Amino acid sequence: MGNYEDLQAKAIYLAKLVVEMTTAAGSGHPSSGAALTHIVTALMYRHMRYSPLDPWNLDADRLVLSEGHAVPIIYAAYADLGGAVGGSPESARRLTVEDLSSLRDIASVLDGHPNPSVGFPFFDAATGSLGQGLSVAAGLARAAKMDSSVRKVYCITGDGETREGQVWEAADFAMDYKLDNLRLFVSANGMGQSDYVSAQQSPERLEAKFKAAGWHARIIDGHNFAEIFDFLHSEADGPSVAVARTVKGWGVSEMQQIGYHGKPLEAEGAKKGIEELEKLRQSKNLPDGAALKILPPPPASKRYRTPRKSVSLGVPDFDKLLKGDSFAKTWTESRKISTRRAYGLALREAGAMDPSLVVLDGDVSNSTFSQYFKKSFPDRFVECRIAEQNMISVAVGLDAGGKLAVANTFGKFLERAYDQIELGLIGGSPLKLVGSHSGASLGPDGPSQMSLADIAYFRGMPNILVLIPADGISAFGLLELLLNHTGPAYMRTLRSDTAIIYGPDAVFEPGGSNRVAEGEEVILVAAGYMLHECLKVRSLLEKEGLKAGVIDAYSLPIQKGILTEILADRSRCVLVVEDNFAGGIGSEAAEYSAERGGARVKSMCLKRFPKSGRSASDTFAWLGISPKDIAREALGLARKK
Amino acid sequence: MGNYEDLQAKAIYLAKLVVEMTTAAGSGHPSSGAALTHIVTALMYRHMRYSPLDPWNLDADRLVLSEGHAVPIIYAAYADLGGAVGGSPESARRLTVEDLSSLRDIASVLDGHPNPSVGFPFFDAATGSLGQGLSVAAGLARAAKMDSSVRKVYCITGDGETREGQVWEAADFAMDYKLDNLRLFVSANGMGQSDYVSAQQSPERLEAKFKAAGWHARIIDGHNFAEIFDFLHSEADGPSVAVARTVKGWGVSEMQQIGYHGKPLEAEGAKKGIEELEKLRQSKNLPDGAALKILPPPPASKRYRTPRKSVSLGVPDFDKLLKGDSFAKTWTESRKISTRRAYGLALREAGAMDPSLVVLDGDVSNSTFSQYFKKSFPDRFVECRIAEQNMISVAVGLDAGGKLAVANTFGKFLERAYDQIELGLIGGSPLKLVGSHSGASLGPDGPSQMSLADIAYFRGMPNILVLIPADGISAFGLLELLLNHTGPAYMRTLRSDTAIIYGPDAVFEPGGSNRVAEGEEVILVAAGYMLHECLKVRSLLEKEGLKAGVIDAYSLPIQKGILTEILADRSRCVLVVEDNFAGGIGSEAAEYSAERGGARVKSMCLKRFPKSGRSASDTFAWLGISPKDIAREALGLARKK
Repeated sequence: MGNYEDLQAKAIYLAKLVVEMTTAAGSGHPSSGAALTHIVTALMYRHMRYSPLDPWNLDADRLVLSEGHAVPIIYAAYADLGGAVGGSPESARRLTVEDLSSLRDIASVLDGHPNPSVGFPFFDAATGSLGQGLSVAAGLARAAKMDSSVRKVYCITGDGETREGQVWEAADFAMDYKLDNLRLFVSANGMGQSDYVSAQQSPERLEAKFKAAGWHARIIDGHNFAEIFDFLHSEADGPSVAVARTVKGWGVSEMQQIGYHGKPLEAEGAKKGIEELEKLRQSKNLPDGAALKILPPPPASKRYRTPRKSVSLGVPDFDKLLKGDSFAKTWTESRKISTRRAYGLALREAGAMDPSLVVLDGDVSNSTFSQYFKKSFPDRFVECRIAEQNMISVAVGLDAGGKLAVANTFGKFLERAYDQIELGLIGGSPLKLVGSHSGASLGPDGPSQMSLADIAYFRGMPNILVLIPADGISAFGLLELLLNHTGPAYMRTLRSDTAIIYGPDAVFEPGGSNRVAEGEEVILVAAGYMLHECLKVRSLLEKEGLKAGVIDAYSLPIQKGILTEILADRSRCVLVVEDNFAGGIGSEAAEYSAERGGARVKSMCLKRFPKSGRSASDTFAWLGISPKDIAREALGLARKK
Repeated sequence: MGNYEDLQAKAIYLAKLVVEMTTAAGSGHPSSGAALTHIVTALMYRHMRYSPLDPWNLDADRLVLSEGHAVPIIYAAYADLGGAVGGSPESARRLTVEDLSSLRDIASVLDGHPNPSVGFPFFDAATGSLGQGLSVAAGLARAAKMDSSVRKVYCITGDGETREGQVWEAADFAMDYKLDNLRLFVSANGMGQSDYVSAQQSPERLEAKFKAAGWHARIIDGHNFAEIFDFLHSEADGPSVAVARTVKGWGVSEMQQIGYHGKPLEAEGAKKGIEELEKLRQSKNLPDGAALKILPPPPASKRYRTPRKSVSLGVPDFDKLLKGDSFAKTWTESRKISTRRAYGLALREAGAMDPSLVVLDGDVSNSTFSQYFKKSFPDRFVECRIAEQNMISVAVGLDAGGKLAVANTFGKFLERAYDQIELGLIGGSPLKLVGSHSGASLGPDGPSQMSLADIAYFRGMPNILVLIPADGISAFGLLELLLNHTGPAYMRTLRSDTAIIYGPDAVFEPGGSNRVAEGEEVILVAAGYMLHECLKVRSLLEKEGLKAGVIDAYSLPIQKGILTEILADRSRCVLVVEDNFAGGIGSEAAEYSAERGGARVKSMCLKRFPKSGRSASDTFAWLGISPKDIAREALGLARKK
């Protein structure tokens, strides 16, 4: 212990800052932060190789705080080190200890939970919803390995937090990719929020679980620097974890009670707590931690994100693209191709143009057709197996590690990771998501495999671009938009082969729409599979003497183009047709119109959960959205007008 | 082996049926089903105590097929046994072997994946999205224990499927509740969909992982009846698992190739496969499985779900309800109470009225205030720790086991389980969900804790009732609606204490709304926290000489009452205000109006991700939805009119 007097002193100083800043903010989790005092001090002042002035260096070591509520201890250390904050190197300034009192203030970079997007670039991703950080760390570690970087990645989780299954998905992933550049600390203080943690999350059980998963695992005293460094210096040919016994509220008796979770000390308690810490320092004859200048070792090298060039995919020549492919014959005979397959071919093209592109999948690459990319660029393909939560957070880590990550699975199974997606977006990740097998047109497999809530979910979120190709041409055009969009984007693809609708001159724009059939008496609006259904409906209506126009609403939110003109026009009569739940294109159109006193808008979508049918048509009829049903509704609408 | 000739013969017969029915359907997963041939035969014909004619008996043993795509093997056995199908005992009929050819037909009870809601009551829940069945089984097992039932619960998962973290959440849960009435088979055939499974899912590693989690675990030969029954008869004082080495496509060489996942045999291949199975039978001198009548042992007792009585919560007297409570003083002084606390008190009242009511929480009962129920009814409280996916699927199992389950956590953390929720609803579960700390009014804690996508997500789903109380009185009124609703329902509650708005005569109805302030020049529509903000806005507008009405849209979808009248009226001007993402009340109102050519509807909601602010007001101002922002918008709208 004698060797770590400077760190001991610094640790006590940081604990004081944690108490002060949370009391100043009137909220926060000082007790969880205090439990990490020695682990964070060891990492941020002595072990990690990085410069606090340059958090943008892709070769510097990184720390992911998965138990985000413990963040005040990181803020304290980073402020003491004068770390850079701000949105970019150009606008950066150094954080000061005085800044700590702005914790959780609306103008502060010190959010309640870690968040790089508000100007705290020490972090790579937002955390706070538990169990996600180890996956982010694994993504960072995998990106570092792809680039043969010296970077090492550290992660801290709570013990109660390891109850989240995603932690064990990440543990498996780290083994699959032999991430020996990844080290985890579990802060095992034994206290959850409402109660003590389960015996299933005891240090002994956690050590056994990690060992069973193949990790190097040991139990240490989380307040003993010798044990912390012994772990950090240990050899490991794969991922390793220290289950660190810690004291929640270390150093301050009042905070050590059960139930002292998301609760700062009152002014009087804070004063007493700081006195208690000061007494501890004096009893150990330690120097004043505030006055000590300790700097972490510098990084071994520097490397920065290179600005991406935009990708240009052009008009696909499927005859050429499918040369030698098992699907070539079907294509030649039918001239139909599924949007998922066209997307897969487009992704392969993009992979050749952009070396930063990495593709993730969850054991369904032969369904999503990300396998085209996988076969051409195996080193940039990341197989995440059947574990979607981990896949998304790994993608967030890959993005933060300098890559452009495109995550693939059935649209339905992305739903397992909606919280992970949202946390990624909160942190400013430009996640690119592609969900296949979307909508009730998936017929035979039934509702457990159909993505039905996706459009409503993604449409409502700020900044995210939603893209819905209906044919092979638009799959290329829309993947180009997805990859070139600076923010996050979601594209949904179809299982079934569909006819080509667009010619070589087709134009696709973010928020745009295209007229695919002329007609004014009623306007049918759809995307994806339902666009083809609407063309059938148009033929039915023609027989009834009604001329229906058909619009492809391939991109949300609606921003410009033909659809906005129609919706703003009070004399129009619009029928939106979707094979998903309410909240999608129908809502978007209704909102646009109702705000402007515009077109009459009727929305047809799923009013019941689907069941298996032998074909999409059977399932649609059962759901009341068959071409006949749609035509009947359209006729009714036109007559009302 | 000699002792199981009848079962061997039956197994071969069932494998033939699996091949036949999937070839007839033209889709499905015969290879995964065939891998389970012997396990399913052992369970359904010999070990499980149940009557195929009475799947409604709560004391009979149950089987949860977590790897839902393998379902044809269950259909085969159940048809051979003449099991009851249909929505209720009254409408039940016996499934026949001839029915199997209707697999995946729109009129069939044999969905592509297990689904009780289409008339297959052998199952308790829909499966098909992987990794969820063990949690459902654990919920069933816990319900059985609560009722001291003899019921035992069996579950089957795939090996690749155990990559899903939820499986390990369930493993911990089963240990916490010492579920010795729960047995799991893992079908370890080593093949995933796109590739072989990871070494992390090898039989040895799986055995080690389950042992590390405290389970009784062993590796067996999944095609050896002696080993299967040895496992089934083994003593266990907790949950136990057999990792069963199986052959994907057992009995039929063609199906045993990698890549033979979701793919039936062609007619010719099916013929050959059946011949191969027949040769196997003959080579072993086994009798004809089709002709053998084998019946499972009958259940030891019978017990059925009792019809629930509706709950009447009345008007709360908080002075009385809070007697002796630490919050009593604050209430007395402020006359404000958070909807989460009022809900907690209401839940405690309901608990006394309805003995079938069970409450789940994820280590935040002191935040959701489900702790009121927990303290009064500890035996009916189910602590799920920090593992929301498992919590939801356990709730589905508890419901299926005869309980009425109410699952609680932060609204944000329910998002982790959206796929589990949707699968529950697909299966017909009447899930009751309560999400606390909703909306951006959560200020200081920041966006990682705020439920912002919930309204858009739940609003779009068929049949689900969305409820948003704004004060203590409506929290009681709306919990009553939630509990008495026969289908699923979601209620969102607030962290902050809010003033009482409603008097003792308030009426709350599904799909209803209430006028809380008079005014006609512009109508402000909101719910929850934003209703209080709209009352502030109304005062601001009054100073500007504008009379604004305020409507509480406490229930979605909008079905009747004052709001529907206003929205249908073209002369009206409506401003909807929400502190969540787009897709909520604003979309609902716009859709209602746009369909009818009704009111002008403008929606204000979050156009960017929030950040921490010291107060809700700070965060709202940053988001552009402060009372001033809203008033400005309202004035603009009214002037336009």
